[in-house]
Amino acid sequence: MTLSQSELALDAEAQNLLFREARTANSFSDEPVTDEQVQAIYDLVKWAPTSMNQQPLRIVLLRSAEAKQRLLPHLMEGNRAKTEQAPLVAILAADTEFHENLPKVFPHKPEAKDIFADPVFREQNAKLNATLQAGYFFLGVRAAGLAVGPMTGLDAAGINAEFFPEGDQQALVVANIGKPGENPWMERLPRLDYDEVVTTL
Amino acid sequence: MTLSQSELALDAEAQNLLFREARTANSFSDEPVTDEQVQAIYDLVKWAPTSMNQQPLRIVLLRSAEAKQRLLPHLMEGNRAKTEQAPLVAILAADTEFHENLPKVFPHKPEAKDIFADPVFREQNAKLNATLQAGYFFLGVRAAGLAVGPMTGLDAAGINAEFFPEGDQQALVVANIGKPGENPWMERLPRLDYDEVVTTL
Repeated sequence: MTLSQSELALDAEAQNLLFREARTANSFSDEPVTDEQVQAIYDLVKWAPTSMNQQPLRIVLLRSAEAKQRLLPHLMEGNRAKTEQAPLVAILAADTEFHENLPKVFPHKPEAKDIFADPVFREQNAKLNATLQAGYFFLGVRAAGLAVGPMTGLDAAGINAEFFPEGDQQALVVANIGKPGENPWMERLPRLDYDEVVTTL
Repeated sequence: MTLSQSELALDAEAQNLLFREARTANSFSDEPVTDEQVQAIYDLVKWAPTSMNQQPLRIVLLRSAEAKQRLLPHLMEGNRAKTEQAPLVAILAADTEFHENLPKVFPHKPEAKDIFADPVFREQNAKLNATLQAGYFFLGVRAAGLAVGPMTGLDAAGINAEFFPEGDQQALVVANIGKPGENPWMERLPRLDYDEVVTTL
C-alpha cells in the first residue's frame, strides 16, 4: 500500500475494484448482465448527490439485437462492433422535465418546481446533474464486478430523434456493460499529474 | 444485507462509505483537510474513465478566507455561510484547452488533437467529460472519509471572470469539503424508483 492509499478510508480492495484495477472494456464475454444486477447498481448509486435532489438521469437499456440496431448508426464507426457485441448497452440521458418530480423528491420546498420554469435553465441543470449521475453509475457498474465502456463520441441529436421523439430527454453518454472478453483493453494510458490538475489559492 | 446488496462485488462497508450512509454536508467541523488527503483523492479518481483519455477536469482549492471571499458573491445566497465555514472549498472546472495534452495522454493516436480543432465541439467534450470526473471526485472525497457538499447553483460566468480570466476554463460545480459539523444534514430525501428511471428495450 502506498502512502497515498493509506490516506483513504476506503479499503484497498474496493479502491482496486472501482478505480486502480478497473479498466474500460472494448470486448465482452457472452455472460449476460441480469436485470437484478442493474437493479442492484441503481439501488446503490441512487444515493449519490444531485443539486436539490433533481435526479434527472434516465437510463434506457438495450438488450435485443433489434434495439441495438436502432442505436448503432448514431455511434462513431469505431464504436459499433463492440456495442453490437456487448451483452448490455445503456443510453444515459437527462430528463429535461425532472422538475415535475420535485414536489415528491424535494417536498419541504414546494416552490422548488417553479425555480425551473425556464426551459433553458432547466436543460442546463438536467444535463449537468445527469452527467454527475452518469459518473456515479459507471462506478456502480464496477461495484457490481462488471466492466463498463463509456462512449461520449455519438450523434446525440440522432439518438434523441430515435429514442426520445417526445423531446423530453437528451442523450449524454452510451455505455457498454458486461464481463470483459478477449483482449478487452488497451495498455493503460497515462494520467495527468496532480500539479497539472490542482491549483491551491 | 439485502438481496440487492448481495448482487454487488463491492463490500458492504465500502457501499456504506461511498453511497448508503454518506450524506451531503451543510456544516463542517474545524478539522482541516490536508494537501495529502486531496493528493490521495486525486491519485484514486484519476484512474476513472474519460473519452479518449481527455481528462479535462481542473480543480481550484480555496483554503484562505481571502480566496473564499472572491467566490462567495457568485454563489446562491443560501450557500454562502456554509462555504465560508468549510475548511476546504473546491471549484471544479473544465479545461477547454485539454486537447493540448492529447499527444502526451493519448500517444498512440497522434491525430487525436486535431479532432478537437473546433472550439464549440471541444467545449462540449470538455464540459461533459469534466462533469463525469466531478462525479468521480465527489465519491473520491467520500473514499477519504470526508463529507462533500456539491453546489451547482452558481453564477458560472462570474466565477470564470474572477478565477479564469484567460478564458480557458469553465466552472461547473463548487464543492465544500471537510468533516461534518453540528447538525450537518437534512433528513434523507426520497429517491426515484427503478421503474421511474430505467426502461428496457
